[in-house]
Amino acid sequence: MKTIERAVVLLSGGLDSSTLLHFVVKKLGAREVHALSFLYGQKHRRELEAAAWQAKAAGVTAHDLVDMEFFGALMPGASALTDAAVAVPRLADLDSKELSQPPTYVPNRNMMLLSVAAAYAEARGIPDLFYGAQTQDSYGYWDCTPVFVERVNAVLALNHRPPVKVHAPFVWMRKAEEIKLGLELGVDYAHTWTCYRGDAVPCGDCPSCVERAAAFKEVGIVDPLMAT
Amino acid sequence: MKTIERAVVLLSGGLDSSTLLHFVVKKLGAREVHALSFLYGQKHRRELEAAAWQAKAAGVTAHDLVDMEFFGALMPGASALTDAAVAVPRLADLDSKELSQPPTYVPNRNMMLLSVAAAYAEARGIPDLFYGAQTQDSYGYWDCTPVFVERVNAVLALNHRPPVKVHAPFVWMRKAEEIKLGLELGVDYAHTWTCYRGDAVPCGDCPSCVERAAAFKEVGIVDPLMAT
Repeated sequence: MKTIERAVVLLSGGLDSSTLLHFVVKKLGAREVHALSFLYGQKHRRELEAAAWQAKAAGVTAHDLVDMEFFGALMPGASALTDAAVAVPRLADLDSKELSQPPTYVPNRNMMLLSVAAAYAEARGIPDLFYGAQTQDSYGYWDCTPVFVERVNAVLALNHRPPVKVHAPFVWMRKAEEIKLGLELGVDYAHTWTCYRGDAVPCGDCPSCVERAAAFKEVGIVDPLMAT
Repeated sequence: MKTIERAVVLLSGGLDSSTLLHFVVKKLGAREVHALSFLYGQKHRRELEAAAWQAKAAGVTAHDLVDMEFFGALMPGASALTDAAVAVPRLADLDSKELSQPPTYVPNRNMMLLSVAAAYAEARGIPDLFYGAQTQDSYGYWDCTPVFVERVNAVLALNHRPPVKVHAPFVWMRKAEEIKLGLELGVDYAHTWTCYRGDAVPCGDCPSCVERAAAFKEVGIVDPLMAT
């Protein structure tokens, strides 16, 4: 496996990016890691506490929080994740065939996050940017797919300076596989946050909660977040 | 020429984007135009007054200002445009052959601006996004080139919803040609701002001022901003 010296990791505090952070630090052995988290107007800002916990646990060089709360406000009504007036749906109520994107999709958020993170990396001369897209997301979200990552890299590759490259090592991996990998790496999943509603305890029926529960069930262990 | 119904226009308040705004409204006849301006930490925030003036003059549907002042702060030392500690150079002092990008380049700014603007457009179901890149910029800036626009569009085209498309109608045009077009469209260039230093009056020797002066000279008229 290629050695990574210096890296930026997009860290939401969810299961995917938390696993990714420990993967970059422990498996790839990066000696300088900048975790980057975003406040973009999400209801589940509780995830940022988990992000801070994981950044500390992984022993990163720096954990920076980008406050772009305005992003959600820029698009009233456009997403259940950012608008109080749009309810986060129960997975059971969604008919994915009817939707071009689920209501939890945030317009062009991932391209925006990667663009800001690439700027942050470029300004520091850091060549590698890690993004926790994984395969189950790609069923619903166009901006979590392998071809999306390829095309973002095709833009960045045009830079006259040494380009920043986006890596999404889990983009072909399912959530259950990620959890297995994370357990090997010692990730404490009690300190990750997945629920889109962002109340004091996970709701258990939003798409994200249901997907998480299914993955832990498949691995055959109790989700430590639900056990506490 | 294709008719444009609804459009978002990136409007900095400079010569290029001000001309573009009037082009979209008057030449393309768009009936609903959203001008979008950004505070990204630039020293020459004075340009935003010009942006507001031009938006009003063009009679846009909406002029929104995105406050992401944090962007410059995210990259200390990385750009003469956003860091008080890095001087805006005189054009005469630059040796472009020695530089991968001029000091006035802001890391990945244009991809970031287009990503946020595409989100804004997508959330409103607006299919067309206009970007004032022009050919002289492309000598220095990798993110003002035709291939850059093409590749950004290749990312956006992956959307499961009808994609937002970036148009850069001036990308093959020189600044003097833009001014001629703008004069036909009645653009008042006294209310545009170009100087990177952003002091009370244009400095006249930063790369942007020099380029502007050369373009007006080529057209054979006095720059109304300098005449006032």
